[in-house]
Amino acid sequence: MPPFDLLVHNGQIVTPQGVVRVDVAVRGEVIAGVFDPSESVGARSVVDATDRYVIPGAIDAHVHFDLELMGKAKHNFESGTIAAAFGGTTTVIDFALDFSGQVGSLLERIERRRAQAEGKAVIDFAFHCGVNDGSDRTLGDIEQLVADGVPSFKLFTVYRDMNLYVNDATLHSVLERLAGCGGMGAVHTENADLVEYYTRRLLAAGKRTPVDYPASRPSVAEAECIRRVIYLAGAVKAPVYIVHIAARQALAAVQQARAAGQPVYGETCPHYMVLTEAMYQRPDGYNYIMSPPLRSAADNAALWDGLAGGWLSTVSSDDNSIDVEDKRAGQESFDRCSPGCVDVETRLPIMFAEGVAKQRLTIERMAEVTATNPARIFGLYPKKGVIAVGSDADLVLINPRAQLTVSPETLHMQVHYSPYAGWELTGLRRPSRRGG
Amino acid sequence: MPPFDLLVHNGQIVTPQGVVRVDVAVRGEVIAGVFDPSESVGARSVVDATDRYVIPGAIDAHVHFDLELMGKAKHNFESGTIAAAFGGTTTVIDFALDFSGQVGSLLERIERRRAQAEGKAVIDFAFHCGVNDGSDRTLGDIEQLVADGVPSFKLFTVYRDMNLYVNDATLHSVLERLAGCGGMGAVHTENADLVEYYTRRLLAAGKRTPVDYPASRPSVAEAECIRRVIYLAGAVKAPVYIVHIAARQALAAVQQARAAGQPVYGETCPHYMVLTEAMYQRPDGYNYIMSPPLRSAADNAALWDGLAGGWLSTVSSDDNSIDVEDKRAGQESFDRCSPGCVDVETRLPIMFAEGVAKQRLTIERMAEVTATNPARIFGLYPKKGVIAVGSDADLVLINPRAQLTVSPETLHMQVHYSPYAGWELTGLRRPSRRGG
Amino acid sequence: MPPFDLLVHNGQIVTPQGVVRVDVAVRGEVIAGVFDPSESVGARSVVDATDRYVIPGAIDAHVHFDLELMGKAKHNFESGTIAAAFGGTTTVIDFALDFSGQVGSLLERIERRRAQAEGKAVIDFAFHCGVNDGSDRTLGDIEQLVADGVPSFKLFTVYRDMNLYVNDATLHSVLERLAGCGGMGAVHTENADLVEYYTRRLLAAGKRTPVDYPASRPSVAEAECIRRVIYLAGAVKAPVYIVHIAARQALAAVQQARAAGQPVYGETCPHYMVLTEAMYQRPDGYNYIMSPPLRSAADNAALWDGLAGGWLSTVSSDDNSIDVEDKRAGQESFDRCSPGCVDVETRLPIMFAEGVAKQRLTIERMAEVTATNPARIFGLYPKKGVIAVGSDADLVLINPRAQLTVSPETLHMQVHYSPYAGWELTGLRRPSRRGG
Amino acid sequence: MPPFDLLVHNGQIVTPQGVVRVDVAVRGEVIAGVFDPSESVGARSVVDATDRYVIPGAIDAHVHFDLELMGKAKHNFESGTIAAAFGGTTTVIDFALDFSGQVGSLLERIERRRAQAEGKAVIDFAFHCGVNDGSDRTLGDIEQLVADGVPSFKLFTVYRDMNLYVNDATLHSVLERLAGCGGMGAVHTENADLVEYYTRRLLAAGKRTPVDYPASRPSVAEAECIRRVIYLAGAVKAPVYIVHIAARQALAAVQQARAAGQPVYGETCPHYMVLTEAMYQRPDGYNYIMSPPLRSAADNAALWDGLAGGWLSTVSSDDNSIDVEDKRAGQESFDRCSPGCVDVETRLPIMFAEGVAKQRLTIERMAEVTATNPARIFGLYPKKGVIAVGSDADLVLINPRAQLTVSPETLHMQVHYSPYAGWELTGLRRPSRRGG
Repeated sequence: MPPFDLLVHNGQIVTPQGVVRVDVAVRGEVIAGVFDPSESVGARSVVDATDRYVIPGAIDAHVHFDLELMGKAKHNFESGTIAAAFGGTTTVIDFALDFSGQVGSLLERIERRRAQAEGKAVIDFAFHCGVNDGSDRTLGDIEQLVADGVPSFKLFTVYRDMNLYVNDATLHSVLERLAGCGGMGAVHTENADLVEYYTRRLLAAGKRTPVDYPASRPSVAEAECIRRVIYLAGAVKAPVYIVHIAARQALAAVQQARAAGQPVYGETCPHYMVLTEAMYQRPDGYNYIMSPPLRSAADNAALWDGLAGGWLSTVSSDDNSIDVEDKRAGQESFDRCSPGCVDVETRLPIMFAEGVAKQRLTIERMAEVTATNPARIFGLYPKKGVIAVGSDADLVLINPRAQLTVSPETLHMQVHYSPYAGWELTGLRRPSRRGG
Repeated sequence: MPPFDLLVHNGQIVTPQGVVRVDVAVRGEVIAGVFDPSESVGARSVVDATDRYVIPGAIDAHVHFDLELMGKAKHNFESGTIAAAFGGTTTVIDFALDFSGQVGSLLERIERRRAQAEGKAVIDFAFHCGVNDGSDRTLGDIEQLVADGVPSFKLFTVYRDMNLYVNDATLHSVLERLAGCGGMGAVHTENADLVEYYTRRLLAAGKRTPVDYPASRPSVAEAECIRRVIYLAGAVKAPVYIVHIAARQALAAVQQARAAGQPVYGETCPHYMVLTEAMYQRPDGYNYIMSPPLRSAADNAALWDGLAGGWLSTVSSDDNSIDVEDKRAGQESFDRCSPGCVDVETRLPIMFAEGVAKQRLTIERMAEVTATNPARIFGLYPKKGVIAVGSDADLVLINPRAQLTVSPETLHMQVHYSPYAGWELTGLRRPSRRGG
Repeated sequence: MPPFDLLVHNGQIVTPQGVVRVDVAVRGEVIAGVFDPSESVGARSVVDATDRYVIPGAIDAHVHFDLELMGKAKHNFESGTIAAAFGGTTTVIDFALDFSGQVGSLLERIERRRAQAEGKAVIDFAFHCGVNDGSDRTLGDIEQLVADGVPSFKLFTVYRDMNLYVNDATLHSVLERLAGCGGMGAVHTENADLVEYYTRRLLAAGKRTPVDYPASRPSVAEAECIRRVIYLAGAVKAPVYIVHIAARQALAAVQQARAAGQPVYGETCPHYMVLTEAMYQRPDGYNYIMSPPLRSAADNAALWDGLAGGWLSTVSSDDNSIDVEDKRAGQESFDRCSPGCVDVETRLPIMFAEGVAKQRLTIERMAEVTATNPARIFGLYPKKGVIAVGSDADLVLINPRAQLTVSPETLHMQVHYSPYAGWELTGLRRPSRRGG
Repeated sequence: MPPFDLLVHNGQIVTPQGVVRVDVAVRGEVIAGVFDPSESVGARSVVDATDRYVIPGAIDAHVHFDLELMGKAKHNFESGTIAAAFGGTTTVIDFALDFSGQVGSLLERIERRRAQAEGKAVIDFAFHCGVNDGSDRTLGDIEQLVADGVPSFKLFTVYRDMNLYVNDATLHSVLERLAGCGGMGAVHTENADLVEYYTRRLLAAGKRTPVDYPASRPSVAEAECIRRVIYLAGAVKAPVYIVHIAARQALAAVQQARAAGQPVYGETCPHYMVLTEAMYQRPDGYNYIMSPPLRSAADNAALWDGLAGGWLSTVSSDDNSIDVEDKRAGQESFDRCSPGCVDVETRLPIMFAEGVAKQRLTIERMAEVTATNPARIFGLYPKKGVIAVGSDADLVLINPRAQLTVSPETLHMQVHYSPYAGWELTGLRRPSRRGG
């Protein structure tokens, strides 16, 4: 047996079976062997992972790089994936959302995005394909894409003005087709009627500041829509993935469906778990304008419980790196700035410091919701999402005793703000040695 | 004590407490006394009700007389109420649905309809006020109308082309206002997107005959919408009345909400309980085009169970007496005829013959769903809906051993068809003598 | 029409249909007519009931007079029924619980109790028949008794030492037989194993005072047993009546079963709704030793909600008038005194003052749970439980503005204590005039 | 790196992450490395596993070897573990059930059983400790045993005559203590009152043959008891393991609790999934007398669904190898023979042929319920139950295309019958190559 290319030695490997102390050997880009650390295995390069957690490279299933839809994202595929990598993320799933009509088939849209990323991205990437109509041609394209290995399709129940919105019939037919061909819908769920109505009323009443923003997209709009989408998905026996869940009533709908055995997968984001609408009262409250908005501490708590309890499946960043000048326009009127939160680099540190270190989540569960589950749900598993022989050698080392002060300056995000600026992220006092 | 004006002697009076043999004495238009039949009470006129059931005059909470919206109804307030009276109905609740914009306030719309009925109707009448917008003016009018004694408001989640449709935001604001002022929403619940989509697809595919019709308004469209309306009503703590429930999945949503204590009231119609979509295969299948459409025998059975079990609250006719020429146009293409079923005269006979005589329903429950509950829900109780001292002397006698062959010729409906034409309605073989 | 024997004029009659102002005319012992107060009806005797509520005579479905089982009751059928009558109760249902073996058939046991009451009781009475075995002879007797008009049978899941206990198999067979012949089981539900165990442990640990008592019969023992009895009843499709529910977890089991459509009826008592285990800290805490014990304020609140919401069906007194000397022995060791609470005279005043006047319960619902429901459940309806022509003229007048200070001296109970001694029962400030 | 002791080359390794083609290298008794098959790994001994599934050695968490309680088991630890090994089982968990009073502490009982097994057993073994009282001494022993690595305790709700029975109070206190110290109760759940009653009645009525047997232990007895045990466990926040679930109503109780998040683990056995009470009609019907009894095809189907759906956690054999002479006595009267089924060798073949090959279960799920879950639940994980570096090298190879005719002669079970005698166990037609 020739020496391996790389050996990660003596780390605390996080697996679905628990944390175990083993060596991981890599040949090329693939994990070629897993050993007891006492075995003397030859390798050209050795990383000492003693007292480090080794987790499967995190997957961020919800990023928006090179986006020109709601404001222009500062992250292109190069800068965005660099930030991701610094944050422990080794794969991103972005979106093909060009509904300008200039790009023909769904496949072409995907290809165009691939071309944008190719050569720029420093980590692996994939795309969800956006869908905003239910025409026979689109339904046919969906089947083709699934067959070609693009299994997931993004649908929006809001943003009529941006041509993203699909109505219930389109939703129903697309989900039905996806059920038939083994694809997966990923749905942004807010009730368009309610969101447009409350937005209009607030603006008309002169309630325009960031503090007024959350009332324009109330929890009931999110919760109603999730219930509706779940019901329509159930009617056609389609699995469905609900993106960026923020409200506890929305989580409750997912929980109810899953308890009844329906294949529903809920995503949330770090910011919905650790920040509240109190942020809108800050001088830079505009930086927190995103959809859905930040909610209450009770919602935070429910999301942590839902994540630990297995009701929520993934944590993504929904990274949308809006320029600070654009955001600042929201100070005057919340509808003047592009919604979005920049979180691709901070996602994993927040999950570790606020989740694992504060014992809201085990390290195994953190790996599951940041890597294993996104891989499984979006067809990347077992190539991604697990440390196992034959899987890609996407490995992230975590020093559980490290401390980090979040600073936009030292982060690699292309905007000069962070929702967590100034936070002290404290690691574990004593690293767990389970399985060591 | 001077002699009463009228004495209904020795009947089997149907009360919520059971069937009892008592005399009912009337002075003017009001029940002035209730006695043991052995008391010798003086009256100017005596009706011998021996071996007859005496029920509170039935209330039909869903009729469309003098309608010029979906086809022109043949029933005006005179002919319609005559047919109603022959069918044992002594009060109808019709609708004020003039959204032409020519009639100003909601109150004016109600007044205009009252004027149409006044002097023509041979029985009592009231109106639900239609609402198709959620403007501040309309919300104010709603409060005023509730204060003035018009407690119920009709909302449509379909019929965008006829300007009846309200979106979720309007629904939400109207229900919220109704919750605040003690009013009641009555909602036609079908998912507009789904109905329009399936209709378009069928027509485009050349599937246009009455047999194709039910697929244009599938159960999922009804069930989804009921769930949504119930959720939105619950969010603003508003009671809500769901009209003409046809699908068992829709009933299930009502049942779930009521079991959880939510004030939701479900209405169904006789035709949804005894007819199935097999009727669309008849040569005159067009006569059965109504919305929602007739469904399956399993739905029939579920509705009977739901009615007996207390999950459904009322049975109305949704009488819409479309001219047979108009209906016939549906033969060629189901969208060419006006939807609607004529049932105001047959409602009670069907409920007795198919419900009570076949032991699917007690006579007490029949009285409850055809009289007591509509009276309670729409603010007419205890003036209407019960045989009690002080209540209106609206009394209907039923000969439980009578037999009736349904024939458009002998009925008083202004159209020359009946969904039950030729049916033999058999009464009870032996009248129950409970309490006698 | 000859003059009536009695006319109750111009009262606010409480009916299931609401409160209405009518005259009630009585001939012999039966209500012979109901009139509008403006009718000039002749009567030999007239009671002016202006500004009084008139309710159907209350039924107390759970009293123990002339009992020699757990201590000797001070109330015999004369003194007990006098106290009942002063408290607005016109019918009591007591028990035939002689399991000494000296009295043969169940029918003989009932006859023996009837003989005890006959000539002494000043109001109407009936009996539940106790059952403590499932022998073929007993099952046959049950069928006979139901045919003879004794529809209800008491079963105890505790009190092994007093020969009252039935095990699950006896319970199961008795309920199965009752389902077959239209009878009703009334079950005291506490888990015998748990109660005996906790009692023994507390006593062994020297925890013997009234304050220690509640821990000997914890809520889990009540709740587990109710769930078990409901499950066994459901398995044989038998209706079942659960006596004296005290714990909110127990109520939850009833609620769950009823929401699923199972015919389960829950009884509670005034003392479980207004008193808490804090009473055991009083110097006379021994007077509050009863089984199950008083529980917490949260349980009180849940019971009020359950009663108002329709989940609980009746309120009885479980009157067991233990001599104060006997009770006092409980001071030293809670197992030394007989359990029981004296409440037959105070039941209705407490329900009115604490329930109706404090708006936890409508007057209609009070009449339902104290009269109508017990009558329905135990086969006395419509002779009892309703003010209607043909029903017994059991009428109780309530002055809603009266005030009462509870005092053992002025009450007619044969023990010199009351759980509510010193309470100021305040009526309604303004009588409701609904329907007047 | 010196050559490994053993290399299992090129097999289809079954992991929780799916089936993957890897090499497994063993040093001593432990898995020391896992490699890509293309790596040339040195080993002293190589097993070619091409086209074989390699699963973690199965764990049978419910066997009775060397039992002298209900008849004398023919399997001692030598013959029983040999049969187990031939059936693909590498670890058994037996019981210490000596309640004779001659063996003092729980620990001594465990030690005595260990001594019986030591030197005889050819595979690994462990013990559940039987508990039949809730004394302070026993509760203390339980804590000690859990600390010493014996985490599970068997409780019986039946078998009063054999001194196995615990009442609800003992159950409650033991579960409470287990919750406190991290142990696990494993409960045989049948309602003793019901089982004794129905047994007595049948025997008294002369209904004594094997065909009569199932009625002596009806589903309601199993289902009621499971509900009760789950409720009591929930009340003290104790996890609980329910052994040998046979009835679908019993499964439903487990499902309901798990859906609500309660840590309840259900076990079933192969015979409950593939055999029905029709077996009692065979000439050798007595061989199928076991408790609980075999049930219907509907129960079979529900158990497969429950297993596939994640509601049931494990499949064990409940092997109790009663001598055929003893069993035959059951022909005359079902209470004359010892209950029990012999299944330790056939468990895995039945699960593969009837479960995996018939596509009721994936191979991954089969490994989970026969190895991973028992290991996790009973504290053997990750030493057992998974193929991973550091775990014991318990490896079972399955040839998915092999065929087997079950014959007592070729099996290694010490009784000359098998519940599946004559069955043709057909493997997969085409081996799955997922992940290969």
